[in-house]
Amino acid sequence: MAQLSVGDAIEKATALLVATGLGREKAEASARLIVASDRWGIGSHGLMRLPFYLDRLLAGGINPQATMKLVTDLPSLAVFDGENGLGHWQLQMAADEAASRAKVNGIAAVGVGRSAHCGALGLYVWPMVNQGLVGIAFSTGPAVMPPWGGNEPILSTSPMAAGIPTTPPTIVDLATSAVARGKIAAKAQAGDPLDPGWAFTKEGVPTLDAKEALVGMLAPLGGVKGYAIAVLVESLTGVLIGPSMAKDIPDMFAADQAALPQGISHFVIAIDAEKLSVDGDHSRLDKFPEVVTEAGGRLPGSGRVNPDDITDADVISITDQVAEQISHWSTKLGI
Amino acid sequence: MAQLSVGDAIEKATALLVATGLGREKAEASARLIVASDRWGIGSHGLMRLPFYLDRLLAGGINPQATMKLVTDLPSLAVFDGENGLGHWQLQMAADEAASRAKVNGIAAVGVGRSAHCGALGLYVWPMVNQGLVGIAFSTGPAVMPPWGGNEPILSTSPMAAGIPTTPPTIVDLATSAVARGKIAAKAQAGDPLDPGWAFTKEGVPTLDAKEALVGMLAPLGGVKGYAIAVLVESLTGVLIGPSMAKDIPDMFAADQAALPQGISHFVIAIDAEKLSVDGDHSRLDKFPEVVTEAGGRLPGSGRVNPDDITDADVISITDQVAEQISHWSTKLGI
Repeated sequence: MAQLSVGDAIEKATALLVATGLGREKAEASARLIVASDRWGIGSHGLMRLPFYLDRLLAGGINPQATMKLVTDLPSLAVFDGENGLGHWQLQMAADEAASRAKVNGIAAVGVGRSAHCGALGLYVWPMVNQGLVGIAFSTGPAVMPPWGGNEPILSTSPMAAGIPTTPPTIVDLATSAVARGKIAAKAQAGDPLDPGWAFTKEGVPTLDAKEALVGMLAPLGGVKGYAIAVLVESLTGVLIGPSMAKDIPDMFAADQAALPQGISHFVIAIDAEKLSVDGDHSRLDKFPEVVTEAGGRLPGSGRVNPDDITDADVISITDQVAEQISHWSTKLGI
Repeated sequence: MAQLSVGDAIEKATALLVATGLGREKAEASARLIVASDRWGIGSHGLMRLPFYLDRLLAGGINPQATMKLVTDLPSLAVFDGENGLGHWQLQMAADEAASRAKVNGIAAVGVGRSAHCGALGLYVWPMVNQGLVGIAFSTGPAVMPPWGGNEPILSTSPMAAGIPTTPPTIVDLATSAVARGKIAAKAQAGDPLDPGWAFTKEGVPTLDAKEALVGMLAPLGGVKGYAIAVLVESLTGVLIGPSMAKDIPDMFAADQAALPQGISHFVIAIDAEKLSVDGDHSRLDKFPEVVTEAGGRLPGSGRVNPDDITDADVISITDQVAEQISHWSTKLGI
């Protein structure tokens, strides 16, 4: 593992993104979000992905010149065409827009269509929570899960995230697949069997064989109910916003598809939390975390650092492989 | 099992509700919703519950004179004080209100606090779907689930429902507990062990013993992720709307608590589906159900009859016990 400061990591990632043609402001916003994932210890959605973004930005799969084009503008709902831009800065802008509109109207939503991967979805609910809003976010991606009982992938990991301005904040951030592909890869490497309910063979048969699962499909969390939740996520993104449903979204990791725009969509909802109370009592926002703790549990997201509290001096760890790739790309792009 | 027509069942249920003091219009709206559950084959949320509602209406736990008092009125968000009224007509009115506001603003939400049980949550998303809207509903109830790793119940079954106006409609309708208590009771009666992941002992230890589970707690679907989703549902209802969090909500089935208002809250979101498309293409709403079927799966909710298609001549089955209780209540209330 290599260690570097958050400040250095953001500077490096920004420079690399700028070198592909992305504007500095969008590049830095995206870099901050990418590095925040590493700061959270979610390396899988952090700098590890940067080389793939860079590859796509150069190959045409992600458009460095993209703007957010407003295509629908109702008082509480805006839909933007992301023009195949990088998902990070686009979803952040969408969340800011939803937040502003929610403060006026009580609730507001923003959809971004024709976008790309946005990293860890949980990142985008924090700014809303920090303004006293409930934030909910959905996204889609390449298909990795079959319908329940089915035999072909049609759903992405169907991630959803939500933040509630309790004290401390409640942060829900999950894929509706039972586990991430990385967890299956680790079992395959160790030669261990999977837990039941994690994966299917490529024919859609439940399997405990990690190697079969790697060429197969992920299973939804909790069986048929998780499938239904994944369908809701896919409906609110790929089906309703579009342009692409999960089954038509190119794989980000496939080098031969780097020139193909992914057509990914994101959907974010902001709600003015204070306005919801029926009795004007807001103390339940303080009490709920206590209730969870007193019952012997842990508030979802309580292990996460508030992005507002991440400083440039914080230190992140990246694998040697990721460090090498970033070094390779720095040479390639003349940074 | 006894059989009766939907028309007769609605007439009977309406008369019984009116006899407790509930206005005819509210009584009939509620009766239709209750009987629709039986028509769907979800007897557990249908006429089986009516005696408990009647008991509470007479004892004071549900207020027959309740109105919906508007306490927050923003362009896209309304919150009503349900004045301890029956949840059915109240959530229906909330869904209608959310639908009207969503048609103007793109998205809208309505919260109802200080309400009571509303039956099957899936009922309330259909009218929105039938108007071309996405409908999403959340509710709370008495605590039956611990936090993940915890040892005291603090979450209700935390139900959520969603309808998407695909052709045919996609209907998600689920409790975020792994299974319903009734399924555990059936295992206990049969002397069969539970599946792993269904339940905890009253100390919070995972158990396969159905009898221990019946005096214990339900487990969330899919483990810790299901717990997080349940927390989101509870946050959007009990915590934010209130007045009661799940842990403070009296049990509907406990006769000695029939005089205690439950303080239940519901939250519904409506979204103008047509407005979400980034490319003006609405054909994905037709294609998605085909994609599911072609992949060997089943669209969530495809087994459900559209409430608009339920006719008075349709026949429902109720258990002999439910038939007897309704007959008993008819005598008691002089119907």
